[in-house]
Amino acid sequence: MFEKVLIANRGEIAVRIIRTLREMQIKSVAVYSTADQQAQFVQLADEAVCIGGPQPADSYLNMENILSAALLTGAQAIHPGYGFLSESAEFAQLCAECQITFIGPSAALLELMGNKANARQTMSQHQVPIIPGSQGTIQTIAQAQKVAQNIGFPVMLKAAAGGGGKGIRQVNCPEDLPAVFIAAQKEAQLSFGNQQMYLEKVIRPAKHIEIQILADQAHHVIALPERDCSLQRQQQKVLEETPCTLMTAAERTALQKAVITALQAIGYENAGTLEFLMDQKHHFYFMEMNTRIQVEHPITEAVTGLDLIREQIQIAAGQNLTLTQQDVVADGVALEARINAEDPQHNFQPQAGTIQQLDLPGGLGIRLDSGVLAGDRISPFYDSMIIKIIAHAPQRTVALRRLTEALSEFHLQGLKTNHDFLEALLKQPRVRQGTYLTTDIDQKFGPEFQAQSKILKEAINEC
Amino acid sequence: MFEKVLIANRGEIAVRIIRTLREMQIKSVAVYSTADQQAQFVQLADEAVCIGGPQPADSYLNMENILSAALLTGAQAIHPGYGFLSESAEFAQLCAECQITFIGPSAALLELMGNKANARQTMSQHQVPIIPGSQGTIQTIAQAQKVAQNIGFPVMLKAAAGGGGKGIRQVNCPEDLPAVFIAAQKEAQLSFGNQQMYLEKVIRPAKHIEIQILADQAHHVIALPERDCSLQRQQQKVLEETPCTLMTAAERTALQKAVITALQAIGYENAGTLEFLMDQKHHFYFMEMNTRIQVEHPITEAVTGLDLIREQIQIAAGQNLTLTQQDVVADGVALEARINAEDPQHNFQPQAGTIQQLDLPGGLGIRLDSGVLAGDRISPFYDSMIIKIIAHAPQRTVALRRLTEALSEFHLQGLKTNHDFLEALLKQPRVRQGTYLTTDIDQKFGPEFQAQSKILKEAINEC
Repeated sequence: MFEKVLIANRGEIAVRIIRTLREMQIKSVAVYSTADQQAQFVQLADEAVCIGGPQPADSYLNMENILSAALLTGAQAIHPGYGFLSESAEFAQLCAECQITFIGPSAALLELMGNKANARQTMSQHQVPIIPGSQGTIQTIAQAQKVAQNIGFPVMLKAAAGGGGKGIRQVNCPEDLPAVFIAAQKEAQLSFGNQQMYLEKVIRPAKHIEIQILADQAHHVIALPERDCSLQRQQQKVLEETPCTLMTAAERTALQKAVITALQAIGYENAGTLEFLMDQKHHFYFMEMNTRIQVEHPITEAVTGLDLIREQIQIAAGQNLTLTQQDVVADGVALEARINAEDPQHNFQPQAGTIQQLDLPGGLGIRLDSGVLAGDRISPFYDSMIIKIIAHAPQRTVALRRLTEALSEFHLQGLKTNHDFLEALLKQPRVRQGTYLTTDIDQKFGPEFQAQSKILKEAINEC
Repeated sequence: MFEKVLIANRGEIAVRIIRTLREMQIKSVAVYSTADQQAQFVQLADEAVCIGGPQPADSYLNMENILSAALLTGAQAIHPGYGFLSESAEFAQLCAECQITFIGPSAALLELMGNKANARQTMSQHQVPIIPGSQGTIQTIAQAQKVAQNIGFPVMLKAAAGGGGKGIRQVNCPEDLPAVFIAAQKEAQLSFGNQQMYLEKVIRPAKHIEIQILADQAHHVIALPERDCSLQRQQQKVLEETPCTLMTAAERTALQKAVITALQAIGYENAGTLEFLMDQKHHFYFMEMNTRIQVEHPITEAVTGLDLIREQIQIAAGQNLTLTQQDVVADGVALEARINAEDPQHNFQPQAGTIQQLDLPGGLGIRLDSGVLAGDRISPFYDSMIIKIIAHAPQRTVALRRLTEALSEFHLQGLKTNHDFLEALLKQPRVRQGTYLTTDIDQKFGPEFQAQSKILKEAINEC
């Protein structure tokens, strides 16, 4: 097992990873930007190295500086978390060249699956149905126009290196395409250091269903219960749950089987998540694979009892999975709400500021994953998601109420958050029933809706 | 099911009960003393009624005022929590006379088992071995001297209405008895409104083992995995875990069976805990029964997946248990650390003051039960226990590390707590191994030890 691991990330996921490293008695090295000097993850780590300025390109995307920090501190492995360099084949390759273990798939697998455009082709070759769209990446606006005309508008323009809803834009008509293409490329470059794009048909209304898998170096692959991440605002997940209320046991088994077969065929390693859209006829279309840990992984941990970060580290260290597909049990229902520092009344604009008071919920079945403490300053440079509240219970109704009560106990003073929006969302009949679809938030709580309402909460209660 | 329940308690257990009531969609009524006007439990409840001044006798032990509040608000049931009136047969009787359901056993059962002196006799009659001691209660110092001479010093003097380590004193020689008797009586009167005392032989070294049971009105009784509460300071539990590392499966089954047989024979109802001492030959001696929920109940919830407060409420409403003894599964290991507002360097004297900053741990396997928020004032009138940290994991080593890490992330500013003491305790080899005994803390960390050490933490590390 590793003696020292560097975490090439920040915020709540860095805290999350450090906690498991400490439990495993592995030394942790944090790397941080000048904006994160006082952050909780920097305090929690055994060592911390400043790797540059607040802009991601200067620090959390700065491969050379991160690798220098690893070599300097003698870290034997790097956990990339999610976002930033977590799906960068180039970074994984550099790690390998430096004899540092990248906790994730190999550079070759990242090229194959971490690149979303390649992943579509690969899965299609292994009998997993994909969303109609471009073959591979698109280089120019002219190319994009051609593919879009073929599959028909509206289309989705997506960053090949994407994830976390970044670099994804819907294009409704040919006239909009050029501007959207350039904007999406720019966001992709900023978020992932890679501006490659691809195109897909828009499938809606749909359920966003994803399958978390674990695969060891001996190519044992297990699939965990699906997560329903259909509650999204502008492609950003807001609230996730497991299992999906609308999926049957037969559908679950079939999807898991297809996924396992394909991943065994390509020799996939470490943790990963395959994202699907399920249309109203319950047809599944592969969208993309996240070749890393995901924000919403705690709901899977709640129902399975696994520590997915520990599994990732053990796999990277060459250990075999300790359980088989038959050993996987799903116990109850879990939901996660993401607290974002953003202003729902002004198009969910990210907020910066100092957390003056922070009262957190607790009690039976409540887990909190946070990267901030009272007194911390939220900087404008990074993702606005600051705290995750996870509720777990034997029955869905109890889990839902538990999350509702937890949100009602949550108080953050000092900057605006989406707290009231989440509370309103949990009151929606389709959320209560579990029948919500990917289009629900944008259609009901989109910019037009918000512009009309002075007070979001009241307005949502009325609708 | 009840529509409205009054909570005749305060602090973390009131918060705990309100959370389950809200999940069950039952309205909650808090009652509070003038010292608790701003407390979290008062804010969380649907209604709140002030029942008197800060002294327990004026408010939380004031039966008339509590019943008036119940009648005034239309509460159909009262949950008494732990301590205060939770084991008062008189209060249960008054509730019955007011046609209000007391969430706990009947007045007759409380008289039989809630009175610790009676419980000893009852259990003895049903083939459960008890600690040698007085038959029933002791009225005078002369009587106490006689019984003590018979069983031999040292002896334990205990409050018949006791619980939570209050009103318990060890007496080492006949000369000490009169003063200790009067002091213990006084504490018993103050804590429970009842000054009856009884005597027991001192059994040590020992493990404090307790069996949590649930019994419905149809007299189905189930026994849950034992809790090891041997880590006590001056009879006050400090750190608890489940299961006990030293008990075998056969011993567990035998003890559970004896308990179930006896409780079925007396027709016990609702939740309860039977406390035993296990000597070094693994002989078990019944000590007392707590006819109520206990502080340490969350560790049992962690390994069984049950909500014990919900079970209590369902039983009181006449519902049958939803599981049998065969359905009880214990999943992993759970530990609880109690954060007390007290000064370990000055004989653990309770502390009052305002919480200026409160940084709480979180993440996988961590549950927090708290009754305070940053900014709250801790008053000197009540129990010093303010926050419970519960860690759960598949293996004991992981659970132990998880608790250790959680404690290291815990920061409270504004008043002194036993935080460093708990951290030091978790480093002790016998705690790490699970072989600790009831005498360990007082012998190693007793007043003499503390008087010699300038800095407790350093000194403990050395020993």
